[in-house]
Amino acid sequence: MAVMEFELIERYFTGAGSERDDVVLGVGDDAAILSLPVGHELVVSTDTLVSGVHFFPEVDPHSLGHKALAVNLSDLAAMGARPAWVTLALTLPQVDEAWLAAFSQGFAVLAHQHGVQLIGGDTTSGPLSITVQAMGFVEQGCAWRRDAAKPGDLIYVSGTLGDAGLALEAIQQQIAFPQDELIGIISRLEKPTPRIVDALALHGLVNAAIDLSDGLLSDLGHILKASGVGAVIELAQLPLSPAFRACQQNKMASQLSDECWQMLPLSAGDDYELCFTVKRQAQGDVELLLLAQGIEACCIGVIDADTEAGLRCMQKNGEQYQTEQSGYEHFKGSA
Amino acid sequence: MAVMEFELIERYFTGAGSERDDVVLGVGDDAAILSLPVGHELVVSTDTLVSGVHFFPEVDPHSLGHKALAVNLSDLAAMGARPAWVTLALTLPQVDEAWLAAFSQGFAVLAHQHGVQLIGGDTTSGPLSITVQAMGFVEQGCAWRRDAAKPGDLIYVSGTLGDAGLALEAIQQQIAFPQDELIGIISRLEKPTPRIVDALALHGLVNAAIDLSDGLLSDLGHILKASGVGAVIELAQLPLSPAFRACQQNKMASQLSDECWQMLPLSAGDDYELCFTVKRQAQGDVELLLLAQGIEACCIGVIDADTEAGLRCMQKNGEQYQTEQSGYEHFKGSA
Repeated sequence: MAVMEFELIERYFTGAGSERDDVVLGVGDDAAILSLPVGHELVVSTDTLVSGVHFFPEVDPHSLGHKALAVNLSDLAAMGARPAWVTLALTLPQVDEAWLAAFSQGFAVLAHQHGVQLIGGDTTSGPLSITVQAMGFVEQGCAWRRDAAKPGDLIYVSGTLGDAGLALEAIQQQIAFPQDELIGIISRLEKPTPRIVDALALHGLVNAAIDLSDGLLSDLGHILKASGVGAVIELAQLPLSPAFRACQQNKMASQLSDECWQMLPLSAGDDYELCFTVKRQAQGDVELLLLAQGIEACCIGVIDADTEAGLRCMQKNGEQYQTEQSGYEHFKGSA
Repeated sequence: MAVMEFELIERYFTGAGSERDDVVLGVGDDAAILSLPVGHELVVSTDTLVSGVHFFPEVDPHSLGHKALAVNLSDLAAMGARPAWVTLALTLPQVDEAWLAAFSQGFAVLAHQHGVQLIGGDTTSGPLSITVQAMGFVEQGCAWRRDAAKPGDLIYVSGTLGDAGLALEAIQQQIAFPQDELIGIISRLEKPTPRIVDALALHGLVNAAIDLSDGLLSDLGHILKASGVGAVIELAQLPLSPAFRACQQNKMASQLSDECWQMLPLSAGDDYELCFTVKRQAQGDVELLLLAQGIEACCIGVIDADTEAGLRCMQKNGEQYQTEQSGYEHFKGSA
């Protein structure tokens, strides 16, 4: 890629996001210089999105810019960390100004929304791929770790589950759900909301947390494994969006099997909701806070000490729902 | 990429590099948690290497693992920063155990050598590409910036120049230099040495610095532009390796034009040496330090206030060498 083209690209990302006082030196030197608040720890996460693997090559670039940042901010949210700085490594097959303008805008709008500043990166020529590294901070010793769930903890999830997975089914299998609902669930797949605000509000009340990128069974499973605990969740308590319910009740719903509808909220990925555990004694405080701040999150189960039984999903009739499935990969064939 | 394959890949990188006390939580959660020493600033750099663009697809994976980390550590060296933590985002077309073993070893050996710990990353399926982010720290206000060169400063470069560029010419144009020299210069291209040790030794003595990734004219030009200064360098002072000189004197040398031999140390990239400026009054201290620590670096010129004239290259006869060339891209055609 010629020098001129590099300069063109850099122009799109200069000043992306907020301008922060703790950025001593941003883009333009060999490295950025950042100032961490005293008494805090640095929290670092990185994720790559590859064209044709993590997104459709023809996806709206504005949404893609949003999502590349969102999935990383979601990881910081899952640590209870406040996001601050981000780097962007962008590999592009060619320079397409309209594409770059839309991508950088999608990225910048979300960055600005959360007070995050782009402090460095690299632009290279090659097959389309995006690696973002997000950095934030948390008071010393206060990060939410996967290994901190305790028997008796209540299990919460934010928002609603299965929307992104349903959107993927609708796109891949060309299911014609009603337009209004479809737009809603596709936006959940393409422009997920990192639960930063929710996480910061819950500061001090959470034991363990993870973000739901691979599906509830798989991700909650990580908490159980890391913490050495088991859990029971109630399928009837899983939060479903009105759009999801409408699609399910719609006459096109039969294009997906009953098992698929059951499994979507359990094992479809890409929702980027938070799954977190709280001490039972803190439940009152948590519920009050959720109400007061207008945060959508609900209790879906409880952690127990039964490591051997692992994660059990209970149906309304009190029977256990049998499933070997965890990640979304294993699930696609059943649709 | 299936779950099993991910686990396989992770196995190769678990524990890569040193185990550091300041890593509160490393690989395996949503994000890493790191503890920065009090009174220090965080320094962050990221670089992507794409197959077919930044390296030959068939390059030795051990060297590639080394280089992916080295180019990022070189950026930290150019800030005068002490490296600490690194993330690795690796995109692979398929899982090749022998390749992974060699790549991860090349990466880990260099990481260990500089006390750096791998604290996170992402492994994805797609065209081969490697993004590394290196993080380190520096005492507050002590980082070396490009914009800090002052008229009167002496300009130093570490090591020798043009070796990596000559190696690229030799490979691309299949020039049969003597085997001994060829091995040396190809190693300079494929396994560059990040000048971390040199940089840490020079702490407190340097005004401005940059690492030579794009070539001396281009990179020193960045210092001049950022600092609002000009400079004069003496071509006869450019440090050349014995291998470079041997190739130049060899009968095969005529396969490259005189201009090419002249320009290689000036404009070829990938040497990853440091270019730095020091106050004239500090020259004695610098020279003593270089001697005492066995650091190879030499003075090649001086910063002046002539912004308009920019960077001037003087020949032995006192005449100015005329060149419009800066980066390596513009140069290849002349060979």
